[in-house]
Amino acid sequence: MDKLQIKTYLESNKDRFLDELFGLIRLSSVSADEKFKEDIIRAANYIVEKLKEAGADHAEICETAGHPIVFGEKITDPSKPTVLVYGHYDVQPADPYDLWETPPFEPVIRNGKIYARGSCDDKGQMYMHIKAMEVMNHLGDMPCNIKFIIEGEEEVGSNNLEIFINENKEKLKTDVILISDTTLIDNDTPSLTVGLRGLSYVEVEVTGPSRDLHSGVYGGAVDNPVNVLCKMIDALKDKNNRITIPGFYDRVIELSEEDRKALNEAPFDLDEYKKDLGIRSVAGEKGYTTLERVGIRPSLDINGIWGGYTGAGAKTVLPSKAYAKISMRLVPNQNNKEITEMFTKYFKSIAPDSVEVKVTPHHGGQPALTPTDSIAYLAASMAFEESWGKKPIPTRDGGSIPIVALFKDALGADTVLMGFGLDSDAIHSPNEHYGLFNFYKGIETIPLFHKYFSELHNSV
Amino acid sequence: MDKLQIKTYLESNKDRFLDELFGLIRLSSVSADEKFKEDIIRAANYIVEKLKEAGADHAEICETAGHPIVFGEKITDPSKPTVLVYGHYDVQPADPYDLWETPPFEPVIRNGKIYARGSCDDKGQMYMHIKAMEVMNHLGDMPCNIKFIIEGEEEVGSNNLEIFINENKEKLKTDVILISDTTLIDNDTPSLTVGLRGLSYVEVEVTGPSRDLHSGVYGGAVDNPVNVLCKMIDALKDKNNRITIPGFYDRVIELSEEDRKALNEAPFDLDEYKKDLGIRSVAGEKGYTTLERVGIRPSLDINGIWGGYTGAGAKTVLPSKAYAKISMRLVPNQNNKEITEMFTKYFKSIAPDSVEVKVTPHHGGQPALTPTDSIAYLAASMAFEESWGKKPIPTRDGGSIPIVALFKDALGADTVLMGFGLDSDAIHSPNEHYGLFNFYKGIETIPLFHKYFSELHNSV
Repeated sequence: MDKLQIKTYLESNKDRFLDELFGLIRLSSVSADEKFKEDIIRAANYIVEKLKEAGADHAEICETAGHPIVFGEKITDPSKPTVLVYGHYDVQPADPYDLWETPPFEPVIRNGKIYARGSCDDKGQMYMHIKAMEVMNHLGDMPCNIKFIIEGEEEVGSNNLEIFINENKEKLKTDVILISDTTLIDNDTPSLTVGLRGLSYVEVEVTGPSRDLHSGVYGGAVDNPVNVLCKMIDALKDKNNRITIPGFYDRVIELSEEDRKALNEAPFDLDEYKKDLGIRSVAGEKGYTTLERVGIRPSLDINGIWGGYTGAGAKTVLPSKAYAKISMRLVPNQNNKEITEMFTKYFKSIAPDSVEVKVTPHHGGQPALTPTDSIAYLAASMAFEESWGKKPIPTRDGGSIPIVALFKDALGADTVLMGFGLDSDAIHSPNEHYGLFNFYKGIETIPLFHKYFSELHNSV
Repeated sequence: MDKLQIKTYLESNKDRFLDELFGLIRLSSVSADEKFKEDIIRAANYIVEKLKEAGADHAEICETAGHPIVFGEKITDPSKPTVLVYGHYDVQPADPYDLWETPPFEPVIRNGKIYARGSCDDKGQMYMHIKAMEVMNHLGDMPCNIKFIIEGEEEVGSNNLEIFINENKEKLKTDVILISDTTLIDNDTPSLTVGLRGLSYVEVEVTGPSRDLHSGVYGGAVDNPVNVLCKMIDALKDKNNRITIPGFYDRVIELSEEDRKALNEAPFDLDEYKKDLGIRSVAGEKGYTTLERVGIRPSLDINGIWGGYTGAGAKTVLPSKAYAKISMRLVPNQNNKEITEMFTKYFKSIAPDSVEVKVTPHHGGQPALTPTDSIAYLAASMAFEESWGKKPIPTRDGGSIPIVALFKDALGADTVLMGFGLDSDAIHSPNEHYGLFNFYKGIETIPLFHKYFSELHNSV
């Protein structure tokens, strides 16, 4: 199997590959909301069917307490190394719908990009692996055994995946985990993600008076839970944008000057970055660059806030309750459960006596660092170099794939994060998209990884 | 006409009076939302019909650029003094509907109270005047000429009323304005409102990045407009709960120690107040009592806030926009237009460079003080004293009736605020209610006002 053979088969099947991906994207498999449950089931079944068509020995739906997990495998020779591909078929909610230029679950091509919810995260990136298996199968060259574990709850915390993995360690036994759910620096600058942030996500409820009040009759004499919530949120960061939760930074590893210098040498154009986001200036923790702020520093964001009257016109209400969804991104060595506890304790401690505060943890995940001195990383690096003609740069991403730490614990296997997306793909946002270049580049590069991983594995 | 005659007629017609009020309440005349437009029109027509049935010489719908105004009058003798009754048939939105024990537009009696949106504010209080006219008409004793101006936009700023009044000064010519849209201290402690706070109501929009972002990929490096909005809102008050807008207090009149002492002598039970609201402690501007905080001090409240993902579950979004509805209650001598300008200027000035801020004024109203040395006030005081057997206490309310200042300017007439509600009536809140005692007490007391006002007017 060489690059030319892969490209030839890919070229003559590219339209069908895209059609199949479109079929998957059209299923609105939003995991956060029960009303999409039917499409969740349809999406899982669709993947089972496509795994079989692509040459899997078998593929199955595995029921969980939540949305089902798809498992599939093609074992060609027990003496070959095994690659476990992880991906997810669930997607983020598409709200706000009115900001989409075309409907989120009706994929269209514009400017060489697939526009749809899940086009990149993670249907497009995950589906490359199924098509890569088809390519290798067609060429009659399977360098590794392949297993697939495609879940439906990644966007809501992967709670049932952990149980499933721990109950099926033998079935999932592997030499490496392969995941495409991260990004390249740009289409001309290949990169491999070696660090991911963890996540602690909570919802807070602040209750003031037991009923909504008239803001004229009571305003100024009774604490307003929205004002109080704003004050409490503001108190979570100091004037240098450092998070004020006691102990929050205790486990954060400060990088050496040398490592920071290396990190900041990655290609990055601040003007382009600001232009892409439509902002005049960036902002964040004092003393760190933008790349450091998302790569090696934790963060805290309000993902949603609501309270009082939010309809048309004016209502002079002093509301009874105010709510916010708050998430913290964590860096290696921080522990998400510990951080959630610290947040809860601190947030309650800064509440005035006039309100009640409830904190509900949503989900979390551990930060992760993947090794750069493994044969798996080397295989990925070689595959990228062959595909692009240049060596990939190791990078640290701001996002979270909690499953990486989980796989290491449960299966003892390291992960290779071989992402083909771009930061500008607007994942989790309206008008999410994924480049056709990236989709096809992935399908072309993945078989090369299998080839080099097998070669290196056998030569160890 | 004496109290006994009034009570006798009232007693034999009380069920019908209530049925008629229920008919009005069942019309969901929410002025803030266009989808209720049909019931707005039905409510206006209903009042025209009821004014005629109660003895008005004529009553009519007056079209405006917004919701119609109802005008009616009964002129029995040009030499008699004229009383102009102002009220409104529009109501606040009923959201959140799920907190209502019974549907907001299906009035029911529980524990001697009418539960429904508008039962107190202002359908119940306004309708007392129509029935009081019926009583006087039936008894053949109309001490004053009566005019009615009942609008449909009080809850959204009365913008078209101002135009209407200025264009119809002759038609509305009067000796006094009479309004029932305020409260008693309690059912055993009659009071007359002599001070009202003004209002400045704005909506703010804070825009960060031009699209919603993934909070992992960008969190920590790009200012989140929700966090920024919370910080800006928090910056509107200092640690003593004083509003920080430069110049905000410049025109506020500090009361003398003597006046403050008198104000604080009004019956007020802080424990009962906290118990009624379900709060452990009150909060407000340092150095002032609860009665002062709502009576003589301005305030600032967030009436609504929203931004980001507010649905079920978790979405890790760094939103593009955040919004809030913010209102300020003003005290006599502050100017609502000036305050709105001050707010706008200050709010924009405290925004970081990373966001855009838009401030849209919603509506406002001037604060007002009504004289206590007028024959109108004396007539109201005598009517209350005859009705309750004790003199009413003059009070300052925290709410706003912007129209009071407007009437003074346009018609040169002072207003008597003869309210029969209670602070605990939950106006603007779920489960708004109005006591049957209060409804009937109003119908009984109003004719006595007409009687004393006429007597005093003729003796001047």
